[in-house]
Amino acid sequence: MSLIVQKYGGSSVADAESIKRVAKRIVETRKAGNEVVVVVSAMGDTTDELMDLANKVVPQPSGRELDMLLTAGERIAMALLAMAIKSLGVDARSYTGSQAGMITDAQHGSARIVDVTPGRVRAAIDAGAVAIVAGFQGFNRGTGDITTLGRGGSDTTAVALAAALGASVCEIYTDVDGVFTTDPRMVPSARKIDRITSEEMLELAAAGAKVLYIRAVEYARRHGVTLHVRSSFNNNEGTLVVNPVDGESNVEEPLIAGVAADLSQAKITVVGVPDIPGKAAQIFTTVAGSGANIDMIVQNGSLALTGRTDISFTLPKTDGPATLAALESAKDDIGFETLQFDDQIGKLSLVGAGMRTNAGVSAKLFTALFEAGINIEMISTSEIRISVVTRADIIKQAVTVVHTAFDLDSNDGEAQVYGGTGR
Amino acid sequence: MSLIVQKYGGSSVADAESIKRVAKRIVETRKAGNEVVVVVSAMGDTTDELMDLANKVVPQPSGRELDMLLTAGERIAMALLAMAIKSLGVDARSYTGSQAGMITDAQHGSARIVDVTPGRVRAAIDAGAVAIVAGFQGFNRGTGDITTLGRGGSDTTAVALAAALGASVCEIYTDVDGVFTTDPRMVPSARKIDRITSEEMLELAAAGAKVLYIRAVEYARRHGVTLHVRSSFNNNEGTLVVNPVDGESNVEEPLIAGVAADLSQAKITVVGVPDIPGKAAQIFTTVAGSGANIDMIVQNGSLALTGRTDISFTLPKTDGPATLAALESAKDDIGFETLQFDDQIGKLSLVGAGMRTNAGVSAKLFTALFEAGINIEMISTSEIRISVVTRADIIKQAVTVVHTAFDLDSNDGEAQVYGGTGR
Repeated sequence: MSLIVQKYGGSSVADAESIKRVAKRIVETRKAGNEVVVVVSAMGDTTDELMDLANKVVPQPSGRELDMLLTAGERIAMALLAMAIKSLGVDARSYTGSQAGMITDAQHGSARIVDVTPGRVRAAIDAGAVAIVAGFQGFNRGTGDITTLGRGGSDTTAVALAAALGASVCEIYTDVDGVFTTDPRMVPSARKIDRITSEEMLELAAAGAKVLYIRAVEYARRHGVTLHVRSSFNNNEGTLVVNPVDGESNVEEPLIAGVAADLSQAKITVVGVPDIPGKAAQIFTTVAGSGANIDMIVQNGSLALTGRTDISFTLPKTDGPATLAALESAKDDIGFETLQFDDQIGKLSLVGAGMRTNAGVSAKLFTALFEAGINIEMISTSEIRISVVTRADIIKQAVTVVHTAFDLDSNDGEAQVYGGTGR
Repeated sequence: MSLIVQKYGGSSVADAESIKRVAKRIVETRKAGNEVVVVVSAMGDTTDELMDLANKVVPQPSGRELDMLLTAGERIAMALLAMAIKSLGVDARSYTGSQAGMITDAQHGSARIVDVTPGRVRAAIDAGAVAIVAGFQGFNRGTGDITTLGRGGSDTTAVALAAALGASVCEIYTDVDGVFTTDPRMVPSARKIDRITSEEMLELAAAGAKVLYIRAVEYARRHGVTLHVRSSFNNNEGTLVVNPVDGESNVEEPLIAGVAADLSQAKITVVGVPDIPGKAAQIFTTVAGSGANIDMIVQNGSLALTGRTDISFTLPKTDGPATLAALESAKDDIGFETLQFDDQIGKLSLVGAGMRTNAGVSAKLFTALFEAGINIEMISTSEIRISVVTRADIIKQAVTVVHTAFDLDSNDGEAQVYGGTGR
């Protein structure tokens, strides 16, 4: 008998009908002879509605009481789902994060899991019941308070439970068919990926792919949990995110797993930095102090005539204002001339474990972009990823030509893209 | 420093504005130098809305999962209220029934409190914070599950916490000014009662007065908790529900505390019951088996000619169908001739501790009703209560004349009633 953890997001349980549909799927999985643990998010827009309510009461709700408020959302969803499953003749019991043993630190709003003690969940499945666990929420032992895990928290709950229970697979149900070679809304010829390594998935998620949260993928990778990303609206196989054991050959891996686009970044250029040792460290210490997550960094080479250089870096657009202010206030110390802020950039990332053993990937990438007349402003690479920054308004074209150059288009999709059906 | 427990019902915290208003009142109480523990119900119609949602998922939601669902309601209200209080500069912390130590039996939907261990609540007020506790909910140690206390549960939570914490008073906030000599919507000359014994309050609540739940009054009486029923919309003194110690003189008690009307009852008459020993026992064993709460019983005296008698009793209208069915199926066993069901009755109850030491109360009651031409169908009495059943459509007139006969009218009110201002 296999133990399967299934995670359903808010869009899969948005109303009573959806809950009944999901219950039916869970019951089928149970009746097929599996032990089933379900992690569920709050229904549809419940979390946003609770947040709106909090905003009406106080200007900037946060901390302990906000977590107490928001955790009502999954509580509602999980109780209704348990009722729906029971009405189909299968025993089901719902558990809060606290009851399910999701022990976290005390960082309200973005708590980290420090231990998972799912004794009650284990007892429920041992008794033949389906266990429904509230996603996103945890419990701090020191304060005795309820916490929340922050963005993507329900995925993390599911993975952590799967690891603690030794589940054979953690199924992440969503409203798309799986992970695609690129965003299908941007490139209709995008192809569903059947199998991807967690390493590649991490790079794709970090590069802007939305289907899974980095944190959940990291947790799955660290604990050897196999993820299966699939649609809750059909029975198609989705995408398996696997963890090849060390030394396992990668020869059968495709060269490239996918292409990700990210339009959420901006670029700051620090112009006229004195070209003397220690200036870069000074700049990035200042930037780190503002709390920004910087991504790519480029130094434009010293200009011999002036003894000054330009340093550019990318960061989330939302971190822009605070970072600019921090740099401006350190202007005299650092001694730069001026700051430029550019929020019209797009980042394209090519990800694939095959890059390790295949030379020529970057040459092929640059050639494809050059032939399409697309200018590259910044470049950064990791072992299995190449990222380039271009203008935001040509990112779709860039992704399309790169997707084609690396033979990622589906046969079906090619016809759509080049045939101009406009779908 | 006094410790005050305040309970706010759903209508007092129906929206963000109401929550801010209640928060202000709590902060004033705290700043006046009191320790404050607040018990709060779910906002406005939240509980009904959650129930509707459950009904859309399964036909008859109940048990563990329904309790899990409904307890989300107070969770939302208490977190928002704590946020609102904190934004006014006073520390506040919210606690679920489980966190507040409301230990109950495992009877989901109508759990009984078996222990109250409010250690965290005590620690919060010792630290100078206001403790906000979710009404209506508890926790069973054996199963580890969340329970609910059933109707009037939040009043009971407040009284139980007041008893466990040794509070000087338990304030029950509502949308009326206190307990009245009768329902002011029925009799405009009704007068607010300043002080009433818990014994009288119990009889009034049992006789149909809606302002307090019997269960909470019983708990308060048993544990010597003083209740103060008052409006959350003004600062007027409300009604004190007190517990005179044994032997304390009642001479200052007014003869009559109030008049209650109850239109929720129906009458069943079992016609032609063989007048032999054991038949009444047989009938009421059958009735009890159907789960009905019977109230008044009258046997109409044996009819010598036939050797048969009629037995009538009252019960909640909602219990009628099940009870009729149970009796019908025992018809041959019991040997009665037929059943009559009458849902057009009204019950009037006169309550007052002074009855104990004053003869003539029933004579005065019957005279007042007789002079108004009102027919009495059934009578029952307790030590401090007389109840009569009349037709439902004249109950308002009956209450009005009795209220006047016992000098309960306010001066103000008399003018309204007899002056016919129609207000």
